[in-house]
Amino acid sequence: MDNLELCEANNVPLTPLTFLKRASECYPNRTSIIFGQTRFTWPQTYDRCCRLAASLLSLNITKNDVVSVLAPNIPAIYEVHFAVPMAGAVLNPINTRLDANTIATILRHAHPKILFIDRSLEPLAREIVHLLSYDGSQLNLMVIFIDETDLPKKFSSNELDYEGLIRRGDPTSSLVARMFHIQNEQDPISLNYTSGTTADPKGVVISHRGAYLSSLSLIMGLEMGTFPVYLWTLPMFHCNGWTLTWSVAARGGTNVCIRNVTVPEIFKNIELHGVTHMCCVPTVFNILLQGKPVHLSNRSKPVQVLVGGASPPAALVKKVQQLGFQVMHAYGLTEATGPVLVCEWQDEWNRLPENQQMELKGRQGVGVLTLSEVDVKNTKTQESVPRDGKTMGEIVIKGSSIMKGYLKNPKATSEAFKHGWLNTGDIGVIHPDGYIEIKDRSKDIIISGGENISSVEVENVLYKHQKVLEAAVVAMPHPVWGETPCAFVVLEKGETYQGGRGDKLVTRERDLIEYCRENLPRFMCPRKIVFVEELPRNGNGKIVKPKLRDIAKGLVFSDKDTISSKKVQGDDDNYRVGCLTSRL
Amino acid sequence: MDNLELCEANNVPLTPLTFLKRASECYPNRTSIIFGQTRFTWPQTYDRCCRLAASLLSLNITKNDVVSVLAPNIPAIYEVHFAVPMAGAVLNPINTRLDANTIATILRHAHPKILFIDRSLEPLAREIVHLLSYDGSQLNLMVIFIDETDLPKKFSSNELDYEGLIRRGDPTSSLVARMFHIQNEQDPISLNYTSGTTADPKGVVISHRGAYLSSLSLIMGLEMGTFPVYLWTLPMFHCNGWTLTWSVAARGGTNVCIRNVTVPEIFKNIELHGVTHMCCVPTVFNILLQGKPVHLSNRSKPVQVLVGGASPPAALVKKVQQLGFQVMHAYGLTEATGPVLVCEWQDEWNRLPENQQMELKGRQGVGVLTLSEVDVKNTKTQESVPRDGKTMGEIVIKGSSIMKGYLKNPKATSEAFKHGWLNTGDIGVIHPDGYIEIKDRSKDIIISGGENISSVEVENVLYKHQKVLEAAVVAMPHPVWGETPCAFVVLEKGETYQGGRGDKLVTRERDLIEYCRENLPRFMCPRKIVFVEELPRNGNGKIVKPKLRDIAKGLVFSDKDTISSKKVQGDDDNYRVGCLTSRL
Repeated sequence: MDNLELCEANNVPLTPLTFLKRASECYPNRTSIIFGQTRFTWPQTYDRCCRLAASLLSLNITKNDVVSVLAPNIPAIYEVHFAVPMAGAVLNPINTRLDANTIATILRHAHPKILFIDRSLEPLAREIVHLLSYDGSQLNLMVIFIDETDLPKKFSSNELDYEGLIRRGDPTSSLVARMFHIQNEQDPISLNYTSGTTADPKGVVISHRGAYLSSLSLIMGLEMGTFPVYLWTLPMFHCNGWTLTWSVAARGGTNVCIRNVTVPEIFKNIELHGVTHMCCVPTVFNILLQGKPVHLSNRSKPVQVLVGGASPPAALVKKVQQLGFQVMHAYGLTEATGPVLVCEWQDEWNRLPENQQMELKGRQGVGVLTLSEVDVKNTKTQESVPRDGKTMGEIVIKGSSIMKGYLKNPKATSEAFKHGWLNTGDIGVIHPDGYIEIKDRSKDIIISGGENISSVEVENVLYKHQKVLEAAVVAMPHPVWGETPCAFVVLEKGETYQGGRGDKLVTRERDLIEYCRENLPRFMCPRKIVFVEELPRNGNGKIVKPKLRDIAKGLVFSDKDTISSKKVQGDDDNYRVGCLTSRL
Repeated sequence: MDNLELCEANNVPLTPLTFLKRASECYPNRTSIIFGQTRFTWPQTYDRCCRLAASLLSLNITKNDVVSVLAPNIPAIYEVHFAVPMAGAVLNPINTRLDANTIATILRHAHPKILFIDRSLEPLAREIVHLLSYDGSQLNLMVIFIDETDLPKKFSSNELDYEGLIRRGDPTSSLVARMFHIQNEQDPISLNYTSGTTADPKGVVISHRGAYLSSLSLIMGLEMGTFPVYLWTLPMFHCNGWTLTWSVAARGGTNVCIRNVTVPEIFKNIELHGVTHMCCVPTVFNILLQGKPVHLSNRSKPVQVLVGGASPPAALVKKVQQLGFQVMHAYGLTEATGPVLVCEWQDEWNRLPENQQMELKGRQGVGVLTLSEVDVKNTKTQESVPRDGKTMGEIVIKGSSIMKGYLKNPKATSEAFKHGWLNTGDIGVIHPDGYIEIKDRSKDIIISGGENISSVEVENVLYKHQKVLEAAVVAMPHPVWGETPCAFVVLEKGETYQGGRGDKLVTRERDLIEYCRENLPRFMCPRKIVFVEELPRNGNGKIVKPKLRDIAKGLVFSDKDTISSKKVQGDDDNYRVGCLTSRL
C-alpha cells in the first residue's frame, strides 16, 4: 500500500486559482463581471489576470511578496484576487474606510512592494505616501492607480497604471503554466488585517489550501448551484469577500460589481441582472428597509442573502424576507478564512410559527463541511459544555481552512491557537439539536451578580419592539451587582423619544424597560436606556461597543430625569448621542 | 511568511470520516438509514461504526490491513465505509455479481484479513473458501457473516458475526479520538477492483484525501442541498457508490437501502420516503420503463438522477424524464475516485427543442471542481485537440482526487499515469462551449477506411428508432475498408424481427440500415444488424463489447438471408443470440 508514490497526475496542490482557469475553459460564453457598462466574459477575465500577473512578474514581484490593494467593489479588486497569487505573491486587501494613519500602520507592517489604489482614493493615497515618507521606513512602495476601464485617462503617459499593466503583460504559455501550478498548498495567498489595527496590527495569513476549502464550504453552505448572479454588496476587502471571490469563479457565476452600496443601486442591479445571491452584514438590512424598498416578490425565486458579522435580529430578518429576500445566517472570522458556522435550514421548521422561525434563523448554526471540528468549551476547564442550549462557553474550531497565523506576531498567534484549537473569543451555547448560538463576544458578556448576561439576547428583545430600529447593550457599573445592562437605542424614523424633538407620542425610557421586564428575566433587564441618533460603528460596520462601555461607565442612576448630550468619536466618524438618564 | 508553522488547530488531514462525526453532532435527530423496517439516526450510525471499529482493532486489524466486504446495498456495507477506515484499515468492497473464481483471484491479490459477507451469499462464501483452501495461498481469512439486524440469528453462538462485533465493541473516548484523527491524508481508505479481473487484477488504491475531495465534488456536481433522501440503486461496491456513501453523511441525508433493485422496490421507496436523489447506469432506465412505471409527476420536485457508466441515449433520457425524474449525466472511473465530468445544465438550454436538450444531456460535460485539469489530447502527439466538437482524442485528467495507483501492479500504474496525466482510455471531443463528449472507449473505436467511427454515435441514432430498446455497435472486418460497424439490437417488447417468432409487422435488417442512412453519414452506417434477445453484460451491468466483437468477426456478408443462433457466454450469465445475416 505504501509503495505507491505520488506523481504529477495525482498530487496537485489545492488552490482556488484553478477555478479561474476552469471557468475560462468550461464557461467560455458566460459573463464573469458586470460593472455599469463594463462586461467581461470568463476568458476575458482569465486573459486580463494572466496579463496582470505577467506584468507583476516583470516588475520583479517574487514569491511571498505582498501586494496591497485599496479599492471598493470594482472589477480590479476582483481580478487581483487571482492575478496577485498567480504571480506567486500575497494579496493584501485593505479596508477603504480606514484613515490614512491606520492604513500607513498596516503598510509598515505588511511591507508590500506595490499598492494598487482606486483613482477615487487619490487624496487618501497622497496622505498615506506623505506619512510613509516622513517616518523613514524602508518601504519602497510602488503606488499604482486603478482607473475605470472605459474612462479617458487622467494621468501622464509615463505613469504606471493598472490598465497599462494589463495591456503590456505578456503571458507566454510556459509562464501561464507556472502561474497555475503552485508549489505548496500551504503557501500564503492573502494577508488580511482584522479591525483594531492601530496598536497591535494583526495580519491574518491565509493559505491556498485554506482559501480553496473555504471557497467550497461557501458554495455548499449557501447551496449555490451553477451560474449564480452574485451582487457584491459585501466589500471584497472583508476577508476576500468571505472567499466568495473565488467561489463565484468556481461556479461559473457572474459578479455584479457596484461602487457604492446604496438602496437604489442594490434594487436596480437585482432587477437588471437577475441577482440570485448576495452577502452582507445586518446593517445593510437597515439600509434596505430605510430607503424606498422595492418588493421583489414577483420574482420566481427570492434573492439568497448570507448574513454575517453580527446576529441578525429576528424582527429585522422578518421584514427583509417580506421584501423578497431569503436570509441565511452564517458566522465567521477572518482567522478562519471566512464563514465557519452556517444556520442550515431544516424543512420541518417551515411548519413553526413565523416568529419562532426567525429566532431559529438567528442562530449561527453548524460547522461548515471543511472544518474538522467545532466545539463550545468552558474557558476555565477546557471541557465541552453540555448540549443544553443554556451553558455558555467559548466557541473553538479546528480545520485546514484556518489561518496559518498572524504575520510577525508570534504572541498573538500562540494565544489564538492555545490548547490546540482556534479560540474564537465568541461565547455561545449548543442547543440539543446541535446548532450553536452565539451569546456574545467574550469581552461583551455582562456579569451581573455572578450571572452571565448575553448582551445579544437583550438586544434581540429590544429589536422586537416595534419602535426600535437598532439596539446595542453593554455593561454599566452597578453598586450592588457589579455590572448591569445598559441599552443604547436608535428609534425607527419618525419616532421621538422623551427629551428629543417633539413631545407627543414619545417613547419613554420606562416604557422600554417595562417592555423588557415583560420579555426577559428581571436580572437581564437594562436598568438604563440611552436614546441615540445612531450607533458608533467602525470601518467594518461593526458597532464599537468599547465606546458605548465608556459612555455607560460615566452614567449614574440619578433621581431625576436629566438630559445629557455627548459627542463620541467613532473609528471613522463622529456622531451625536442624545442621552437620557432617568430614575429606575 | 514562511515562519508560520502549522499546528494542531490548522493542519488537519482531510478525510471523509469527519462527515460521520459531524453528522452525529449536527444532525442528532435525523434518520441516517432506512432499510425495510430498520431505521437508524446519525448518532446511532456513529455509535455502531465506533463499536465496529473498536472490535476490528481488538481483532488486531492494524494500519493498511485490508478488510473485504461482499454485500448488496444493506446498512452494513454503508457502515463499513466508515468503520473499516476508522480502524486504520482499507476497505475492499467486492462486486457481488462476480463468480467465486474471480472473487478468489481478487482476495488472493488484495490479501484481506477479514471478509464480511451477507448471509444471502453463504453458498458463494463456501465456494470461495473452498477455492482458497485448495491453492495453498497464505491467506488466513476470517469470514464474518452479516445477518439482518431484526432477524433471529441462524448460526451457533460461538460464530463471529457482524452484529456481535458491533455489540461487543468498546469504543473508549481515547480510541474514538484516534479513529477520527488519521495521520496522513494520503493514507489509503479503499481498494476497489475494476472489471476484467481474471487475468490481471487491477486494485485501485484510493486515499482519504481523494475520497474527501470526490465526496465534495459530488455534492456540488449534483447540487445536493442539505438533508437529501438518497435511494441506493447504485451498488455501493461500485467505487464506493461513486463516493456518495460519504457525501450523504456530509449532507446529513437519509440513506434508503434496498436489497434488490426492482421496479416495485424503486417506486415504493421513492413514494414512501420522499426520495430526492439516486444514481444509476442507463440500464436501470430500461428496467424502470419496462416494468409498470409509476408517474411521479405529482411530486413538488422531480427525483434527481445522476446517470453514468455509459452515455444515456437521448431517447431514453426523454422517456425517463417524462416519468418525473430529472436526469443529470456524469462520467467517471474508479481510477479517479468516482465521477470526474458532470454535464452541468445551462438555463438557456431550456429554450431549445426537447430533442436538442436530450442531446445536450448526453454529453459528459465539464470537469468537476476538485480536478485540477481536464484535457483531450491527440494520443500520438500529446497535443490538445481543437475545441471544435469534431476532433477526437483521449480524455486525460489531473487532480488530487485521482487514485494513488494499482496495488502491486507497477506496470499498469505507470501505464495509467504516462505523460503526467491519468489516461482514461476514453476517446472524446471538446465542443466550442467547453463541454466534453465521449465518442468511445479507445478500444471500441471503429476505424473504417481510415475514418474514426464512434460506436456511441451510431448507437445513439439506433436508440432513437421507436422500435429499438437497446443497441450495441462494434467493428466487424471488412475486405475493403478494414472495419465496418455491426449493430446488435434488442427490439422493444412485443416487436418482432425478421427471422424471429411471428412474421407480421416485422422489423427487417434493411429497414434499420435504411434508417441509419437517413440519419448518419454513409461510412458510419452499420452494414450488418444482428437482432438479439438481450445484450451480454458483465457484473457491473456494462455491455461486454469484446464478446460482440468475437461474434461480429465470425459474420460474413452473404448473398442470402440466413438465420444463425449463437449461444454466448457473458461474464456471469448465458444469453441467446438470434442472429440474422442478410445481404447488404
